[in-house]
Amino acid sequence: MSKALHLDVPAGVPWIDFTREFDAPVAALFAAHTDADLVRRWLGPHGYEMEVPLWDCVQGGAYRYVHRDPKGHEYAFRGTFHTVRQDELVVQTFEFEGMPDQVALEFLGFEDLGDNRSRLTGRSLGRTVEGRDEMVAGGMESGMTDGYVKLDALLAERR
Amino acid sequence: MSKALHLDVPAGVPWIDFTREFDAPVAALFAAHTDADLVRRWLGPHGYEMEVPLWDCVQGGAYRYVHRDPKGHEYAFRGTFHTVRQDELVVQTFEFEGMPDQVALEFLGFEDLGDNRSRLTGRSLGRTVEGRDEMVAGGMESGMTDGYVKLDALLAERR
Repeated sequence: MSKALHLDVPAGVPWIDFTREFDAPVAALFAAHTDADLVRRWLGPHGYEMEVPLWDCVQGGAYRYVHRDPKGHEYAFRGTFHTVRQDELVVQTFEFEGMPDQVALEFLGFEDLGDNRSRLTGRSLGRTVEGRDEMVAGGMESGMTDGYVKLDALLAERR
Repeated sequence: MSKALHLDVPAGVPWIDFTREFDAPVAALFAAHTDADLVRRWLGPHGYEMEVPLWDCVQGGAYRYVHRDPKGHEYAFRGTFHTVRQDELVVQTFEFEGMPDQVALEFLGFEDLGDNRSRLTGRSLGRTVEGRDEMVAGGMESGMTDGYVKLDALLAERR
């Protein structure tokens, strides 16, 4: 059975907090978020394909990727990597190109729980409360849940 | 007499909004925010010197600069440029290295008012409400006010 995604969307502020545990060492969880060949195997909803034309995952680098749904519709995302600290922290910007200039800032914390377990703790900070609410209404939670189920499988395969 | 800086620090949310008008065309105001040789002549409090070891002001680029106060104390800042749209918009991350991981996201809008006047509209979005409050308590407003007085002089000189 897959682990629960805990999502907290407090009223009146522009952020979403989330946590998710994984049955994998923190180094494997970090690699799955920073190596494009791994990211493209799990990020996004079930049935989507992902292309990664740009992925320079270092402090001061940038990325761009495109999700394609089963009907062939494309959804492009881009951002910069402000901080990339091995097995600890990624701070990155995030923009869905379909909602131009609604840039978010994401903090992804990686924590070792011992016994080959680890925890991901995230904050996604939007430009406005309304923009944050639109992201949530647009199916953010189910897309994340789908992605993490795929990530569980990827991590199990690599153990 | 210099124009007023309007700063809005609403309770309970992690952002600061500000606006400032300038007696200069929008292209000159934009250049003064994106060309390192110009930025270093006005950004920061009175009496500070500024060095800019890194400045790649393009979409996906990065920057780092160091302010030195009259006693020789150094204050370093770094970030990435998420969006750089000529005479319109800059979206960048911002971190004071003395407060590690308290990364902010800044939106700087540039607007032509005609008659050689322009308006800067900014939102600085912090990771937490408490971090935003610390920035304000740390003298953010007086540093900004000082900088914009220097910017007025720089823009007047270049007319």
